[in-house]
Amino acid sequence: MNYSWAERLSGMEDPAIKNLLKTMQRPDVIALSAGSPAQSSFPVAELSAAFSAVLADQGASALQYGISEGYGPLRKWVASRVSRLGIQCEMENVLIGNGSQQVLDLIARILLNPGDYVAVESPTYLAALQIFKGYQARLLPIPMDQDGMLVDQLEAAIQTKRPKFIYVIPSFQNPTGICMSLERRRRLAELAARYEIPVIEDNPYGELRYEGEAIPAIKSLADSPWLMYAGTASKIIAPGLRLGWLVAHPEFIERVATAKQTSDVLSNSLTQRAVHRYVTDNDLDAHIETIINQYRLQRDVMLAAMKQHFPAGVKWQAPHGGMFLWVTLPDGMDASALLPLAVEQAKVSYVPGTPFYADNSGANTLRLNFSSPTPELIAEGIERLGKLLKSYMNG
Amino acid sequence: MNYSWAERLSGMEDPAIKNLLKTMQRPDVIALSAGSPAQSSFPVAELSAAFSAVLADQGASALQYGISEGYGPLRKWVASRVSRLGIQCEMENVLIGNGSQQVLDLIARILLNPGDYVAVESPTYLAALQIFKGYQARLLPIPMDQDGMLVDQLEAAIQTKRPKFIYVIPSFQNPTGICMSLERRRRLAELAARYEIPVIEDNPYGELRYEGEAIPAIKSLADSPWLMYAGTASKIIAPGLRLGWLVAHPEFIERVATAKQTSDVLSNSLTQRAVHRYVTDNDLDAHIETIINQYRLQRDVMLAAMKQHFPAGVKWQAPHGGMFLWVTLPDGMDASALLPLAVEQAKVSYVPGTPFYADNSGANTLRLNFSSPTPELIAEGIERLGKLLKSYMNG
Repeated sequence: MNYSWAERLSGMEDPAIKNLLKTMQRPDVIALSAGSPAQSSFPVAELSAAFSAVLADQGASALQYGISEGYGPLRKWVASRVSRLGIQCEMENVLIGNGSQQVLDLIARILLNPGDYVAVESPTYLAALQIFKGYQARLLPIPMDQDGMLVDQLEAAIQTKRPKFIYVIPSFQNPTGICMSLERRRRLAELAARYEIPVIEDNPYGELRYEGEAIPAIKSLADSPWLMYAGTASKIIAPGLRLGWLVAHPEFIERVATAKQTSDVLSNSLTQRAVHRYVTDNDLDAHIETIINQYRLQRDVMLAAMKQHFPAGVKWQAPHGGMFLWVTLPDGMDASALLPLAVEQAKVSYVPGTPFYADNSGANTLRLNFSSPTPELIAEGIERLGKLLKSYMNG
Repeated sequence: MNYSWAERLSGMEDPAIKNLLKTMQRPDVIALSAGSPAQSSFPVAELSAAFSAVLADQGASALQYGISEGYGPLRKWVASRVSRLGIQCEMENVLIGNGSQQVLDLIARILLNPGDYVAVESPTYLAALQIFKGYQARLLPIPMDQDGMLVDQLEAAIQTKRPKFIYVIPSFQNPTGICMSLERRRRLAELAARYEIPVIEDNPYGELRYEGEAIPAIKSLADSPWLMYAGTASKIIAPGLRLGWLVAHPEFIERVATAKQTSDVLSNSLTQRAVHRYVTDNDLDAHIETIINQYRLQRDVMLAAMKQHFPAGVKWQAPHGGMFLWVTLPDGMDASALLPLAVEQAKVSYVPGTPFYADNSGANTLRLNFSSPTPELIAEGIERLGKLLKSYMNG
């Protein structure tokens, strides 16, 4: 059909990702490509009780429209929950969205004009890149080392390109698993204040730490209107509930609420109430502890299998938390070119690294997921992938 | 704070609407300004049973991520449901969004470049105007008469301005209550095909008819890729569930799904399943019949009270369906200027007409809602408003 599309549409589209999603649905392929939490971890009975209790206690009022900022008691709970990360805030600092993905979309919507720069870690969450490109932003990829984004290079980029905001995933980053050091977090908070540029701290995985000491949130390091924090229920409760949150200055929240009002009025009233009920009636920390124990085991199974089956020259580092393991193949190898072989011959899938790079580099990198498959499938999938890599590298 | 906002933000903001929402929350004011369905009509027990049944039967899979197009069985149900409007389609023609508001937002996102024209009824749904202005569109308001949009004027506007799409609410329009005639619908479908311009048919109220014969949907009048149809569960089940749908050509649906993926990945998985379960296990038509009986009564109470209490010179027409009654005050009167008096003195609220007009005209018009307040409050509210109008017009 001869539809006349908006220019921004091309920025949102990535055929590689679309094909990938199709691959993941093939039942004969072991999906190490997932971005989803383990279904076995979802608190089904507790959520069922919470939905019933809300409808029994609040009745029809739980099904009516409400304000775009979200359900008050849930916003209060978020404010209290983030205080353990060192973030001091009130309900007025919180907005509820449909997952942190919508929070990022709304922020981009109220900040970005076409051509604006956005500084991002390189590599970073591929859907965030799609969001920013959908608003016709130009991306400023900043390299990372094992302590996270290289903030000296960021400052140089700020001085020359003046990005509209800086987007980071400081804890157990997607895709690399890297945790930004406290010192880098401090520098980032300072840069935000000095240059008056928002830092968007996306933290879906921060509570999923399997070893080591917690590092404070960037937003906790300064009482600054330039520091914004996004969290989500997707990785600690369940993603199908589509609940995430933004913590920011009330003046910023007010404008995000305007965008939310225009976008879809409000997030699901009943689900907001049920999730509030769930966290009130249950021990979320104990639940997260069971997820941590499960994912730690799965990570260790993956690491052990990689050690056993991956050929020399393939490199990785053990992440201290999160859901992903980042793999670097020898120079000259192309993970995108290898993927069809992996899927068709080895019957195992992963995500090639390139879509995570704003500059389309990273051909020899790939992302593995250890949260979604069972330990048995992880071991089998890594063995299959190891065999493929060996035959490919020797061939 | 010195945040640097995107240019599009100013298009989304309307301080008048923000103030209005605050007014509606005052417990001492009778809100005839609502846009919400009657809370008493929500099927609380049935929905509670549906949520429980889905979690009992489908377990954790009901809480996982899913495809952006929506839950297959719900999409199939929508395809079957719209067939009674004469629309022939399959699951592939349907996408589930967070209410029809998000459907409109996603359509605007993939079609509109800044400066593009959008043809709209004058007046029309004020949030649609905010969405289109948020994408920096220019609006082409087309006047209406009692049969709906004046399609001759639309065709003239198409020839000179070539709008990107045409947005209409053909049945029991918000705010006027007008139902577009079959002949006008036919002309609109012809214009869409002739000029290859999408017509977005927004139909939240179509099933709420209190008298007269049903008129086929515009989309049913031609098997055309240029006709798009948006529906919602908000007015026939409950708005807090945030479920709406788009029916369109599969090529169009595919691009809307791309925008949905970027925007918030998917709509609430559990709610999609629960609503599907609700419509499967219950008689939705019988439920809608009870809503119709309730709203017809409330409309008639409002009409009777208006006849009794409104002064000569104030004009209105009885709508055959929907939730709204449109009032025209004598020339020279200003409903926006009168609103503070209504709220502070008479303790009754309405929506002034101006925000519904793309060209900010309509100063002497206002919208009343009869779905949300009880018959007692409607009678009392209209009496208060009538007294105020009398004293104001005599003063």
